[in-house]
Amino acid sequence: VRARTQAQLAFSASGTSWWLLNASPDLRPQIEATPVLHPRRAPRDTPISGAILTSADADQVLGLLLLREFQPLVIYATVSVRRALVEENSLFRLLERVEGQSRWKEIVPGKTFSPEPGISIFPLPLPGSLPGYVAGREGMPAGEAVLAVVLQSGSGKRLLYAPALPRVGRELIEQMNTCEIALLDGTFWSDDELRRARGGGPGAREIGHVPIGGPDGSLQALAGVRGPRKIYIHINNTNPVLDEDSDERRRVREAGWEIAEDGWEFEL
Amino acid sequence: VRARTQAQLAFSASGTSWWLLNASPDLRPQIEATPVLHPRRAPRDTPISGAILTSADADQVLGLLLLREFQPLVIYATVSVRRALVEENSLFRLLERVEGQSRWKEIVPGKTFSPEPGISIFPLPLPGSLPGYVAGREGMPAGEAVLAVVLQSGSGKRLLYAPALPRVGRELIEQMNTCEIALLDGTFWSDDELRRARGGGPGAREIGHVPIGGPDGSLQALAGVRGPRKIYIHINNTNPVLDEDSDERRRVREAGWEIAEDGWEFEL
Repeated sequence: VRARTQAQLAFSASGTSWWLLNASPDLRPQIEATPVLHPRRAPRDTPISGAILTSADADQVLGLLLLREFQPLVIYATVSVRRALVEENSLFRLLERVEGQSRWKEIVPGKTFSPEPGISIFPLPLPGSLPGYVAGREGMPAGEAVLAVVLQSGSGKRLLYAPALPRVGRELIEQMNTCEIALLDGTFWSDDELRRARGGGPGAREIGHVPIGGPDGSLQALAGVRGPRKIYIHINNTNPVLDEDSDERRRVREAGWEIAEDGWEFEL
Repeated sequence: VRARTQAQLAFSASGTSWWLLNASPDLRPQIEATPVLHPRRAPRDTPISGAILTSADADQVLGLLLLREFQPLVIYATVSVRRALVEENSLFRLLERVEGQSRWKEIVPGKTFSPEPGISIFPLPLPGSLPGYVAGREGMPAGEAVLAVVLQSGSGKRLLYAPALPRVGRELIEQMNTCEIALLDGTFWSDDELRRARGGGPGAREIGHVPIGGPDGSLQALAGVRGPRKIYIHINNTNPVLDEDSDERRRVREAGWEIAEDGWEFEL
């Protein structure tokens, strides 16, 4: 099995200002492996303008706490995700130590926004809930917990990013069909995979990840989607598709899917 | 300048069970670079038994949130440090998802404890305060915010670890003189170093780090300590001692100090 860091994507329209899609706990080695994201002139100057959050999952947000060296940072999130982080976690004050250090901007699910010229982002609400650690998760408005995002470049070409996919719905399929590239939740192969590894606990669907395999897995549900290049991301270390010789890997490849690796680049 | 990951030490008496001194945000690459800390039989089995926290500083505690793969973990901390983390940060519930996942044990400053046979630890209270992000920092008892720890092996040999040193006191010097090895706060060379890099903000002493240089820096204050091997750790990327050709590096070396690098090992 080839080692991978945790799911992380960065995008840019200008090539000089970059945006993170979520912020993984592996952000430091990921930035180090990516020269365009290295600090420029001064040691604390960075080409990273900000981050767009698709959920409050720890593996999608912990990297924000690594970006606390006083650089200005714009963070896009839904109201519920922002509250889960900022109002429940005093550590997030590390991003507010000096005036203008971080600025939160609101994502309204279903409403396209543009972090900078040449990029528009459509946030598609998915039917998930806030992660288990969030104390105030009851009573948060539906549709703000988990998003897929569709990036569109100035050329009109589109990329879908959904590292957590609670289930496959009609709207997701419609969006996928408008895209050149779709990067989708491939966390687990089967619903009971994590339970078997741990000797107990919740199933994949219970924690917001439709499995790849099985009669109602994402491979079957998305078999009819032929337009975009289809790539599984966010793959857990228990998932047999990581093993290049596994039967599961063969089935995924035969269905036209790729399994993401560190360092991949896409142009829209 | 040779790149370094953030300050982190792991120790063991048995060679099979290991304890972390604090938990840095760079813990993943640090574990990967250290074969004795790799998972053993099962993918979620680890030789890491727990962690001992010397403060609630983000760069000493964020790594705990990376150890959330359901392995049992014992975390030693003072009451004030535990409260700052657990009661103010819902993310720490990630360490309490299953019964027996994490167990907090209390460090009473000044009272020696033993995480396992063959190791005793003396926690020396230092005159620091809780980090700025902590909401309830007023009213916390003095002496619980910042510790130096003195590890003692079965052979009676001792190592002092103080990644944050608000100032050099008599008791610290007395403890150092009983040790074979002293790993000490070398964050900043001068009090205004961070302020100059950022164009404003607090001085080194204000954020709990006595600088190395200057008439009341640690180099001068500890000039009389001749017993232990003396090593500066926790060195900020603004500190000129990182540059092997700098005058500051030469002065530190001439005074008998070493500048720590990743991968160093010590035997007591």
